[in-house]
Amino acid sequence: MTTSSSPSAVSADNGWFTEVFDAEGSAFSLKVKQKLESVQSEFQTIDMYDTESYGKLMVIDGCTMVSSRENFVYHEMMSHVALFSHPNPKQVAIIGGGDCGTLREVLKHPGVENVTQIDIDEMVTRMAEKYFPELCESNADPRADIRFDDGIKWVKDCAPESLDIIIIDSTDPVGPAEGLFAVDFYRDCFNALREGGIVVQQSESPLYHSDTIIKNIHLDMATAGASSSHTFQFPQVIYPSGWWSCTLACKGGDATAFRVEDAAEKTFRTEYYNAEIHAAGIALPEFMKRSLGIED
Amino acid sequence: MTTSSSPSAVSADNGWFTEVFDAEGSAFSLKVKQKLESVQSEFQTIDMYDTESYGKLMVIDGCTMVSSRENFVYHEMMSHVALFSHPNPKQVAIIGGGDCGTLREVLKHPGVENVTQIDIDEMVTRMAEKYFPELCESNADPRADIRFDDGIKWVKDCAPESLDIIIIDSTDPVGPAEGLFAVDFYRDCFNALREGGIVVQQSESPLYHSDTIIKNIHLDMATAGASSSHTFQFPQVIYPSGWWSCTLACKGGDATAFRVEDAAEKTFRTEYYNAEIHAAGIALPEFMKRSLGIED
Repeated sequence: MTTSSSPSAVSADNGWFTEVFDAEGSAFSLKVKQKLESVQSEFQTIDMYDTESYGKLMVIDGCTMVSSRENFVYHEMMSHVALFSHPNPKQVAIIGGGDCGTLREVLKHPGVENVTQIDIDEMVTRMAEKYFPELCESNADPRADIRFDDGIKWVKDCAPESLDIIIIDSTDPVGPAEGLFAVDFYRDCFNALREGGIVVQQSESPLYHSDTIIKNIHLDMATAGASSSHTFQFPQVIYPSGWWSCTLACKGGDATAFRVEDAAEKTFRTEYYNAEIHAAGIALPEFMKRSLGIED
Repeated sequence: MTTSSSPSAVSADNGWFTEVFDAEGSAFSLKVKQKLESVQSEFQTIDMYDTESYGKLMVIDGCTMVSSRENFVYHEMMSHVALFSHPNPKQVAIIGGGDCGTLREVLKHPGVENVTQIDIDEMVTRMAEKYFPELCESNADPRADIRFDDGIKWVKDCAPESLDIIIIDSTDPVGPAEGLFAVDFYRDCFNALREGGIVVQQSESPLYHSDTIIKNIHLDMATAGASSSHTFQFPQVIYPSGWWSCTLACKGGDATAFRVEDAAEKTFRTEYYNAEIHAAGIALPEFMKRSLGIED
């Protein structure tokens, strides 16, 4: 461990990528071997790096999105928690998710019949195919339908009661993703879901956002018709605070119920998720229970 | 969220403290209002900062140790997990722990009769008293015996079977704390513990150290006579990777057993710990189970 009494240590050799999270006065940096590519899509700037210890790194508009080393936590929690919470998921939609890591995890479930992924920005998927081929290894699965379109409009136009699970695998609630954190969009999600359906959304940092974004998602989900909603916490090293969450909401049923035995006997390999981790993710720290008004 | 395509953003205004974790090519930074004090003790350099969003920050030899904002996770997990795992803890020792945050948590347990804290560096406690008075609010408790001495020697000289719990609340396993990650020290700990006793140690990052430090602690604890040992994971934003752990080992009994009902009906306020969080901490991700050789 190296001593650094001033932040200049990070920039001394110009070999670092840093994401500054201004609102909370914190920053996270990865040492990079080289910048591989920078593309400006219709929607955002995508930068690709080769890092010293985290493999490849995708950055969108200055925010870290995916690293080879630790994306498994996020992608597994965004998929398997919802998939094992639903009694029998067959039709799944992923809104966002252009890096295809969540799609790969969803397709590990043999009972899933089709997955439609709608990301607004095709360039994210092209960059993932090039630099994260392992995340895209199931893209040719005949059950996968990968589209590049406006996810909000797609869900609005969706046939009522045609989906079992909607996964909102989006960027932060600013810019292109802002409309994905809104009661109107959630209402359209619940219309598209069958009874017993589940919507799950990435819901930012427990430390930074329990009183704001996370609390509002629960309120908005309830307004949109959720019977129950629950936030799951997990580590996510490259995101602000290194501590992240997803929030699951149900159309009928309880957001903390899941198929424990099926999860314990899952037929595929994971790096983070297992049945005990699923159950563990349900537990909330005292400060979050207070923020979300959850009584003991 | 601010875009930063190069690490210079962190150093642009010289208003940041950065800890670089060279071995893994990552760094964490906090925006600082000012450096409050820097003292060179007999053992190490202690720097105190006032940060923009994390309150006060203590840094020892360049490594972040304590911030006002999020130390609660670490201190609660280092204390209450062990205290509620033991059937009836009365005599407790804390090795290290000079910031007194763990001591404060231990003293919340009404059944504890005395706590001896042995940190080698008095200056750490003097700085904590000055800048983290909230962590030191129980230092005058008549059950607390705060000593400044060599913890390894203190445990070695301890009367056999005189303690119920030993908490090793140390810095990283380099420098002054190196001898606290060693089988000889653990053997002395088990000699000092009564039957049913527990030793708990901070055990670094699950992402960075599952295959090395954490694995070795389990092996060394078993060699020293542990009947059972288990690692608990939790978020810790300012430590390398933002993801941390403690490892608990028992002299008789099972390291995952705990007094669930007592934890659920705890008589004191916490910010992170509760009975569900204790149970959740027992769950281990798949990659850690593989590293530690834990079968399903």
